[in-house]
Amino acid sequence: MDKPVRIALDAMGGDHGVAVVVPAAMAYAASDPGVELILVGDETAIGEKLGGEHSRITVHHASQVVGMDELPSQALRHKKDSSMRVALNLVKEGHADACVSAGNTGALMATARFVLKMLPHVDRPAIITALPNTASQTWVIDLGANVDSSEEHLFQFAVMGAEQVAALSGIERPRVGLLNIGEEEIKGNEQVKKAHELLQASDLNYLGYVEGDNIFDGSVDVVVADGFVGNVSLKSSEGVAKMIRHFLQESFRQNLLTKFAGLVALPVLKAFARKIDPRRYNGASLLGLNGVVIKSHGGADQLAFGNAIGIAKKAVHNNISHRIARHVEAQLAAREQA
Amino acid sequence: MDKPVRIALDAMGGDHGVAVVVPAAMAYAASDPGVELILVGDETAIGEKLGGEHSRITVHHASQVVGMDELPSQALRHKKDSSMRVALNLVKEGHADACVSAGNTGALMATARFVLKMLPHVDRPAIITALPNTASQTWVIDLGANVDSSEEHLFQFAVMGAEQVAALSGIERPRVGLLNIGEEEIKGNEQVKKAHELLQASDLNYLGYVEGDNIFDGSVDVVVADGFVGNVSLKSSEGVAKMIRHFLQESFRQNLLTKFAGLVALPVLKAFARKIDPRRYNGASLLGLNGVVIKSHGGADQLAFGNAIGIAKKAVHNNISHRIARHVEAQLAAREQA
Repeated sequence: MDKPVRIALDAMGGDHGVAVVVPAAMAYAASDPGVELILVGDETAIGEKLGGEHSRITVHHASQVVGMDELPSQALRHKKDSSMRVALNLVKEGHADACVSAGNTGALMATARFVLKMLPHVDRPAIITALPNTASQTWVIDLGANVDSSEEHLFQFAVMGAEQVAALSGIERPRVGLLNIGEEEIKGNEQVKKAHELLQASDLNYLGYVEGDNIFDGSVDVVVADGFVGNVSLKSSEGVAKMIRHFLQESFRQNLLTKFAGLVALPVLKAFARKIDPRRYNGASLLGLNGVVIKSHGGADQLAFGNAIGIAKKAVHNNISHRIARHVEAQLAAREQA
Repeated sequence: MDKPVRIALDAMGGDHGVAVVVPAAMAYAASDPGVELILVGDETAIGEKLGGEHSRITVHHASQVVGMDELPSQALRHKKDSSMRVALNLVKEGHADACVSAGNTGALMATARFVLKMLPHVDRPAIITALPNTASQTWVIDLGANVDSSEEHLFQFAVMGAEQVAALSGIERPRVGLLNIGEEEIKGNEQVKKAHELLQASDLNYLGYVEGDNIFDGSVDVVVADGFVGNVSLKSSEGVAKMIRHFLQESFRQNLLTKFAGLVALPVLKAFARKIDPRRYNGASLLGLNGVVIKSHGGADQLAFGNAIGIAKKAVHNNISHRIARHVEAQLAAREQA
C-alpha cells in the first residue's frame, strides 16, 4: 500500500479560516484513508471546530495569521509564526508533502518562494489552474503571479504547464497554445512573438497562437500567457458566467408561468449548474517551487476547499515537482544543444 | 426635421459580403426614414441582391475587395479601389457621415487612419464596444487596436471612451475604471500604474482599478485596457458564453424527460438567450479618427449588421467625433495647466 500523503493545511487562511478549513479537512480525511492532514494554526480555534480526535488529522500550532490584505513583504518580515509560513516550513522540513492555503496569494507566493526556493532554471513561480471546456479541461498558466513576462518566462510557463497537465491528466503530450490576439498586422507584442519562436523550436506539442475563446472550446490543453493577461482572462470569464447565471435565474423568476417552467426544468438546470460550478475547479498550483503548494480561492467553501486538498494529493502522488524539474532541465539542455 | 444620416456600407466586407450587407441595408432603410444608405462595392453583385430600386438606398461602385486575411499594408498599397477604401473616401469627401464595414479589422484601421487622419492629440485609433452587464452595459476600450499601450495611450482611451459613452448612452459623467489584476504586491505593470496617476489627476469620473469580473457586474461604465488585454478579455468572455450555451443545450437534450422540461422552459430560455445575444452588441467604434467608422463582426448576420448601422447613425446624430476632439483637447489643456 502507498504511504499516505501528508498535507499541511493553512487553517487560518482565506475569508473563512477555520470555519471552512477544519470541516473540509474532517470530511476529506473521513473519506480518504490515503492522506494525513495537518491543520496548522491557532490550536484553540482549531480544537473548538474539531471537537475531539479524528483519525488522519493532527494539529500543529502557529500563533500568527497573515491578513488577506497584508503586503507580502510585511508578511515575510513580521509573520514568521503565521499558519501559512509554518505550513510551508513543514513541507520544507519534510514533515509534509504539500501545503494548501486559501490565504493572500501575494503573501503565499512570496513566502513559498522564500521558504521552499525555486527549482533550478526557473525564475519565478507561476500559477496554473484547470478551467472547464466543452470537452474536458483546459489549463491556463500564468494566472497572475507575473506581469511583463519575458519570452523566457513564457517559455518556462509552457514547459511547466505541459508537465503538470501530463502528470495530472494523463495526456502524454498536452497540446500547448500561446495566448495572443487575432489582428494580423499587430499580432502580439514582442515578448509573445519571441516566445512563439522558442516554443516552435522546442519539443513540446506546440500548436501555435490561440485566442481567448480557445480556452473554452477544447482545442488546446494548456494555454500560456503573461500573468496580467491570464488573470484578466480568468476574471472576465468568471464575470460572464456570473452574469449569465443571474440572467438565467431572473428569466425563470418573471411570473407564475416562468416559475412553473423553472420548477419543471429544475433538475436539468441543477445538472447544468454542476457542470460549470467553479468550486469543482478550485485549487491552483504554484509551479516552479521545490515543493507542492496549492492555492485555494479565498472565498472557498467546504466543497471547494476539499477539492484543493484533492489536487494537492494528486500532485504529490504524481511527483509533480520532480517531474517539472527534470522536464525544465531537459528542455533547456535541448535548447542549448540546438 | 433632421437631415437624414448618410451611411456608407462596405458591401463586400465580412465573411458573407453582399449576402448579408444588402439585405441588412434593405431591412434597415425600410424601417428608418432617418437614413440614406450607400452600398459600396461591385455594382453587379449588389444589384442582383437588391433586385430593383429601394428608397433611401443608392449604390456606389468599387472594383476591388480587401480579403479577410489580407495584410493591412498590402490592402493600403494595392487596394485603392476597394469597397472599404471607397466607403471611407465617401466620409472623407463629405458624401457620407459614417462608414460601416465588416471587413478585416487591421485593414480597416490602417485604411481609416490613412484616409481620415487622426484627431489632434490622439496617437492611434482605439476600438470600443458595449458589452452587457447585469444592470445595463459596460463599454470596453481598447479591444485590440494597440498592444504595449503607454500610459498616455491608456489615458487617451479613457478620455475618448468616456465621451463616447456620454454621447451614446446619455450618462453625463460615466464611471471609468482601469483594468488591472488584484494581487497587491505586483499590482499592475508600470504603464497601468502611471495611467492610474494620470487618471486620478484628470477630471474624469475615475473610480480606480477594476478587475475582469467588473466588466459584467455593472459597477463601472467604461473599462480602459491595453488592446492585447482587452481583446483577450473579450474573446475569453465570448468563449465562456458559448461553452455555457453548449452545456445548457446539452443538459436539455439528455433524454425524453429533460426534453420535455426544455419544451416547457423554451419561452423562458428564448427570452434569456435574447438578453445575452452577442448580435445585439455588434458594432464597435474606431475612435480617434476624423470621422465615424463602425466595425461590424466579420461573421455578422443580417440582424447583427443592422445593429452596427444603428450605432453608426446614433454616433453621427450625437456628433461623436467633434465631441471627442473637444474633450481630448480640454483634458490635455487641463493637464498642461496642472
